[in-house]
Amino acid sequence: MSFFRSRWVQRPERVSELEPSALPRGFRAAGVAAGIKPQGLDVGVLVSDAPGTVSAARFTTSAVLGAPVVVSGEASTDRLRAVAVSSGNANVADGPRGLETARAGQAAAARVLGLAPEQVGVAATGVIGRELPRERLLAGIESACAQLGEDAETFSGAILTTDSGPKRACLDVQLEAGTVRLAGQAKGAGMMSPHFATVLCFIETDAELEGETAELLTGVCVKRSLDRMTVDGQLSTSDSLFLLASGESGVRVVPESPDELALGEALDALLRQLALDLLADGEGARRVGRVVVRGDGATVEPVARAVANSPLVKTALHGADPNFGRVLQAAGQALAGDGSAAGGSYLDLDIEGRRVVSGGTALDLDDDERRDLAQAVTGDEVEYELTIPGQGGETEVFFSDLSHGYVTLNAEYTT
Amino acid sequence: MSFFRSRWVQRPERVSELEPSALPRGFRAAGVAAGIKPQGLDVGVLVSDAPGTVSAARFTTSAVLGAPVVVSGEASTDRLRAVAVSSGNANVADGPRGLETARAGQAAAARVLGLAPEQVGVAATGVIGRELPRERLLAGIESACAQLGEDAETFSGAILTTDSGPKRACLDVQLEAGTVRLAGQAKGAGMMSPHFATVLCFIETDAELEGETAELLTGVCVKRSLDRMTVDGQLSTSDSLFLLASGESGVRVVPESPDELALGEALDALLRQLALDLLADGEGARRVGRVVVRGDGATVEPVARAVANSPLVKTALHGADPNFGRVLQAAGQALAGDGSAAGGSYLDLDIEGRRVVSGGTALDLDDDERRDLAQAVTGDEVEYELTIPGQGGETEVFFSDLSHGYVTLNAEYTT
Repeated sequence: MSFFRSRWVQRPERVSELEPSALPRGFRAAGVAAGIKPQGLDVGVLVSDAPGTVSAARFTTSAVLGAPVVVSGEASTDRLRAVAVSSGNANVADGPRGLETARAGQAAAARVLGLAPEQVGVAATGVIGRELPRERLLAGIESACAQLGEDAETFSGAILTTDSGPKRACLDVQLEAGTVRLAGQAKGAGMMSPHFATVLCFIETDAELEGETAELLTGVCVKRSLDRMTVDGQLSTSDSLFLLASGESGVRVVPESPDELALGEALDALLRQLALDLLADGEGARRVGRVVVRGDGATVEPVARAVANSPLVKTALHGADPNFGRVLQAAGQALAGDGSAAGGSYLDLDIEGRRVVSGGTALDLDDDERRDLAQAVTGDEVEYELTIPGQGGETEVFFSDLSHGYVTLNAEYTT
Repeated sequence: MSFFRSRWVQRPERVSELEPSALPRGFRAAGVAAGIKPQGLDVGVLVSDAPGTVSAARFTTSAVLGAPVVVSGEASTDRLRAVAVSSGNANVADGPRGLETARAGQAAAARVLGLAPEQVGVAATGVIGRELPRERLLAGIESACAQLGEDAETFSGAILTTDSGPKRACLDVQLEAGTVRLAGQAKGAGMMSPHFATVLCFIETDAELEGETAELLTGVCVKRSLDRMTVDGQLSTSDSLFLLASGESGVRVVPESPDELALGEALDALLRQLALDLLADGEGARRVGRVVVRGDGATVEPVARAVANSPLVKTALHGADPNFGRVLQAAGQALAGDGSAAGGSYLDLDIEGRRVVSGGTALDLDDDERRDLAQAVTGDEVEYELTIPGQGGETEVFFSDLSHGYVTLNAEYTT
């Protein structure tokens, strides 16, 4: 089965799929069991051996930041050579002690790998408000550095919390200047743990990029993928994405060239499918929704978020209920602030390509049409297209359903 | 047991509780079974027989409005004499036909009661996107008008959808100028139906009020009660509140007098307890939370809403888990936009009066303290007090928990 499973991801041309745990040239990685989790891999290190490596990073916009996010943000995010990550215990709300632990992990990886601390990014995911065991973390980083190999098999496992399995892919991308490799490993998935839906994502390529190109491609593609997904509307304190480009393919990607566009399309598809894999693996998740909103440019975004984050829409998605009234209600709530109180009378809504609301009025469906609509929302992916007043805007948000599994995991667990 | 059950409602002085279904002087009401629901009372009429009655009303701020909200909004909301309400089927997204039905209901009540249509408010709650059966509604209104009695027993039942029972109270309020009566009936409660959490609320008093006083007291007290509660952050298309003052006690409440203040305190307590009753009756609800946020005046509100609407905080409340990390995470998300990225390091958090986070750092609780905290969150009401950076602001939001019952009702029902 192709990695590109979703109909919402266009499989890029001139891309071939490699072993999902493969890495581009110049990269080594490892994951080890350091005892932070009760069992299993929990500390990972990823390194580029190429001195000319360029990088880019994106972090959570929360005002409550995990210590690793603070420390990574102070590093040279455009010239990173390595990332050290731990799972099972985040490092949040632990004050100066937490910051010291994050800096100690950064320094340990730098020392063993022969790098400066500012060339090392750090990340952690797991329970928050509990001390991250520093000695285990440091021993784990040293151990991982001693076991670095040329694939991401153990690394992609060490970043997981309660994901059902690793999310990863490795692609060959044929550019005009030659073939480059592009890989990614991600963790997180809605409410996949009793804690936060922290998303960690690591992208590697052996393309030779300008620093500005790495930054540009990361910015554009994250906006179209991880920034477009929601499980429960809850922003983690620890979300981090790192992209490293080793240049070891010897294939230079010239800014504003067709090759830059082609690599961007491959990265876009990789990140979109990884984001959809995260949603589909959300605890208790049964299906994934996509809401597309067209209309006023300033309003499409809050309306799409309101629909995607509505527990009413999400439970209906879970129950395969084509409940258009809940979509109207969520849209009405988001539109309320814009002063156009009559906005509701201009809404059009299609569910899986079938018109159900026209000009704010529900269509009178006959029995055959109702059965057809009910059947259409039983698949793994359900699409809602909403037209609101105004013009010039179009956006999409992907979301998971809200299930008993979510409640069980988040209510019946006690710290 | 007193109507004023919650520790978050101050029982007003000089107030005594009457039979909960009693009505103030000048009012009559009735509820009948008109066949809109499969069974049970579903159409209610409330009328003040006093020509000098003054009134006030509040409606949902959604941009998608139920037809009765549109029609009521066009009525003389400061001089209403009656309200006709139906349950079991809302009147939303039905285009011109829905508006005609709402106007026909208003006209039918006006005709039978000898009023002008603009003296009659209308409301409906229930499934949306389905036609409200006009003939049943009109027959129900005529029947209810023929059965008007001096209590709200059947009326308070006819406004319910799947509430476990009526929410209502009637109070005698001793003012300096004499004793007045104040009553209220409400329906709704979180996700108490597979449809929307529509809140309908009817308040009657026989105090003699200026129109401005009715408007003022309604505005102030709604802001401190119904506007402060959330089940799932979802705003209904049909929320409506009507206050009618018949003046039949002969007790005049002078604007800006101690009596105005005393009546306001009684109305405040009545509406706050009714709001808490709505939350406590939410489908699957086990307990009610209150989050108090103190700090920057412009920021306390979004932070309190973020905490109260977080499915992570709500599932933790359901599971009696004193999970302070989820409160920090929600606060961090809401604070993110304000540019003070270091905000997280200034947060203080108390749960049930116990300090758990100080200056953004989780306190190291010993085993006894952990047990005490865990026990403290097992009650019917749990309080969170959060201090954010800045000064001058304080707000509160009440919220219900998120349970399996919510998911069951909203996912397993199919239109």
